[in-house]
Amino acid sequence: MTEMERMGAAAKAASYELAVAGAAKKNRALSEIAEALKERSADILAANAEDMEKARAGGMSKSLQDRLKLSTARIDGMVEGVLQVAALEDPVGSMIKMTTRPNGLIIGKRRVPLGVIGIIYEARPNVTVDAAVLCLKSGNAVILRGGSDAAKSNAVLTRVMREAVEKAGLPADCICSVSDTSRKSAVELMGLTEYLDVLIPRGGAGLIKSVTENSKVPVIETGVGNCHVYVDCDADLQMGAEIIYNAKCSRPSVCNAAETLLVSRAVAWDFLPMAKMLLDKDNVELRGCPITREILGDCVIPATHEDYYTEFLDYILAVKVVNDAEEAIRFINKHSSGHSEAIVTNNYFTAQKFLNEVDSAAVYVNASTRFTDGSEFGLGAEIGISTQKMHARGPMGLEELTSSKFVIYGEGQIR
Amino acid sequence: MTEMERMGAAAKAASYELAVAGAAKKNRALSEIAEALKERSADILAANAEDMEKARAGGMSKSLQDRLKLSTARIDGMVEGVLQVAALEDPVGSMIKMTTRPNGLIIGKRRVPLGVIGIIYEARPNVTVDAAVLCLKSGNAVILRGGSDAAKSNAVLTRVMREAVEKAGLPADCICSVSDTSRKSAVELMGLTEYLDVLIPRGGAGLIKSVTENSKVPVIETGVGNCHVYVDCDADLQMGAEIIYNAKCSRPSVCNAAETLLVSRAVAWDFLPMAKMLLDKDNVELRGCPITREILGDCVIPATHEDYYTEFLDYILAVKVVNDAEEAIRFINKHSSGHSEAIVTNNYFTAQKFLNEVDSAAVYVNASTRFTDGSEFGLGAEIGISTQKMHARGPMGLEELTSSKFVIYGEGQIR
Repeated sequence: MTEMERMGAAAKAASYELAVAGAAKKNRALSEIAEALKERSADILAANAEDMEKARAGGMSKSLQDRLKLSTARIDGMVEGVLQVAALEDPVGSMIKMTTRPNGLIIGKRRVPLGVIGIIYEARPNVTVDAAVLCLKSGNAVILRGGSDAAKSNAVLTRVMREAVEKAGLPADCICSVSDTSRKSAVELMGLTEYLDVLIPRGGAGLIKSVTENSKVPVIETGVGNCHVYVDCDADLQMGAEIIYNAKCSRPSVCNAAETLLVSRAVAWDFLPMAKMLLDKDNVELRGCPITREILGDCVIPATHEDYYTEFLDYILAVKVVNDAEEAIRFINKHSSGHSEAIVTNNYFTAQKFLNEVDSAAVYVNASTRFTDGSEFGLGAEIGISTQKMHARGPMGLEELTSSKFVIYGEGQIR
Repeated sequence: MTEMERMGAAAKAASYELAVAGAAKKNRALSEIAEALKERSADILAANAEDMEKARAGGMSKSLQDRLKLSTARIDGMVEGVLQVAALEDPVGSMIKMTTRPNGLIIGKRRVPLGVIGIIYEARPNVTVDAAVLCLKSGNAVILRGGSDAAKSNAVLTRVMREAVEKAGLPADCICSVSDTSRKSAVELMGLTEYLDVLIPRGGAGLIKSVTENSKVPVIETGVGNCHVYVDCDADLQMGAEIIYNAKCSRPSVCNAAETLLVSRAVAWDFLPMAKMLLDKDNVELRGCPITREILGDCVIPATHEDYYTEFLDYILAVKVVNDAEEAIRFINKHSSGHSEAIVTNNYFTAQKFLNEVDSAAVYVNASTRFTDGSEFGLGAEIGISTQKMHARGPMGLEELTSSKFVIYGEGQIR
């Protein structure tokens, strides 16, 4: 048995105990975790300082350093997050449906935990706590495999959480952490079919593609967002300009930010200058089709084929003028990563057509794509945003971390 | 573009049309298919005769020949199945939930088709029709990749169905079929991530393991059933004997048949001879632990470690005496494929414990495992029985062939 298999077996054993633990015990573990994170914040900050020193020495970019860095305020934020998860309703054990068959069998479909969830993620140490507590609340054991940059921070955070879980009378192995942050450990995790029920990658497009394509364990694909806003010929143009400005600029580094603006040819001459006025406030770089350049001039960089497939995560926006909603829908279904798309229109039938025909996790009429988020959707916390169609699609809350099983009450029936 | 990619792109394009086609049009296509199968039955039987001739020449086993063979009665059965699927409720388009958020956004979660489903299967030509019509009714385009043994039968069946679909005004590419039955085409299908949303293998354990481990497309694992019956110390022993006899012998070749009998030590001396009396009627070969052999004698073959992991699909039963329900549950969770397990007991608490702690798709009290089946569970037809926890678990009907998307109605909201 390898080290990883031993960890898998331990997590599996813990998962059976956790699956039947009940909400009261799980919530006690969450309070203990919140308490322990506060009490041990000095240790956590010290470990994080070591990670930060190494990061600076290694020349890590400022924005990545910012994601890695912890502070008292950020630890407070983590604690707040843990308490919010504790306050959510426990999805485990509810009966999704129950019927009595003609032969008298009573067949119920009961919500149960998935079992053991693996999470592969990158630099942000807050994911360690977020992911662990969402898994715990939904009755799943977790195996965390963070990135090397946050290794010291993650080690302390995991140790603190494991002790807290044990204090609440649950097995420490409900929360396991892989200390080896090499590619080898990721590959081992992707092959741990005997113990892992699901693997969730959280991070950049490269990580997600690698896990999706190489994992033997079932994967939930998350997070890549090449989102579109389409401004229709029947749009309120001022609303359209405000929506694309918000979707692009309110937080360009996140997956629900817009990357491409599509505009109906009929309103392009009126709309594009209005949109540009707002986008200029944040110096957004525009990469446009020939008509866009004809309208807005040479300040617009010619868009390449590749630009329309790119999640810029930056103050860059691809722009294309299209004939109509039909062409916009076809363009989106071809280029999108299937995350979030919006239409701006006053036309009822065009709105319905867009909602019906765009094949993405979240499809909006007259609102910014930035709302695709677990708490904005009212799910409480989220473990990620699924861009695949199997199991879960869109923001994933506690329910999406569960499976079901059929429980059948008989009186001796045979077939 | 390879041949397979061209097929993927065609199926994807068809899937968009099918997704918004509505129940009336889909049902018309199903009636056309039923009609065409009847009308063209001579062609279908002729093609099947060619497959059968090749099978006999190649020395195919009698039982496999039986699965491959079509007859007028079997075609009637197919037609009946198509009409039954037409009569089922269309799951597509229903709103799973809908809420209005404090900011006025109306957020609905709508059931939508998965998109394009790939099915890799083996010798049975009836799967060609079953799978195609279930996918069609649930709004999904399908790419069928059957085995070489049924190549001629499948080719005619697919042609007939494609023509019928077109006659109903839907694109023929709603039903695609891969004529190359080599391993190469299976590998290509497993890598068709751009076009395939889900891949479902139907067949033996070897096929399923190979697809699960090698596919880059998300997979739903189906069908391997190493099912257990546990006869508790508090069981009605006569009921226990009848249940294990039914679970083992009513149809040993199917996945919901029992493969292992566990018996509480306290009742083993009384129960095992009773069970054996029934099992002897069908000459079931017993492979038992030392205590089983002590009780029943040398007619019981010593069970190997491997026997307890094996899906015999035959008149063979592994037997083990255990101390109590606790040990039975641990044994099942270790050895089972997670399909169906039953306890026979009159004890309320033991029954509840078994239902809670056994980690399988279907868990029974006082009934035969043979009931795990879409129509027995009231789901109508089924495309397979999922033994994984993601997306679907247990018998998969039309609903399990759908995904969801969030549709959001705004009035200009920005974040």
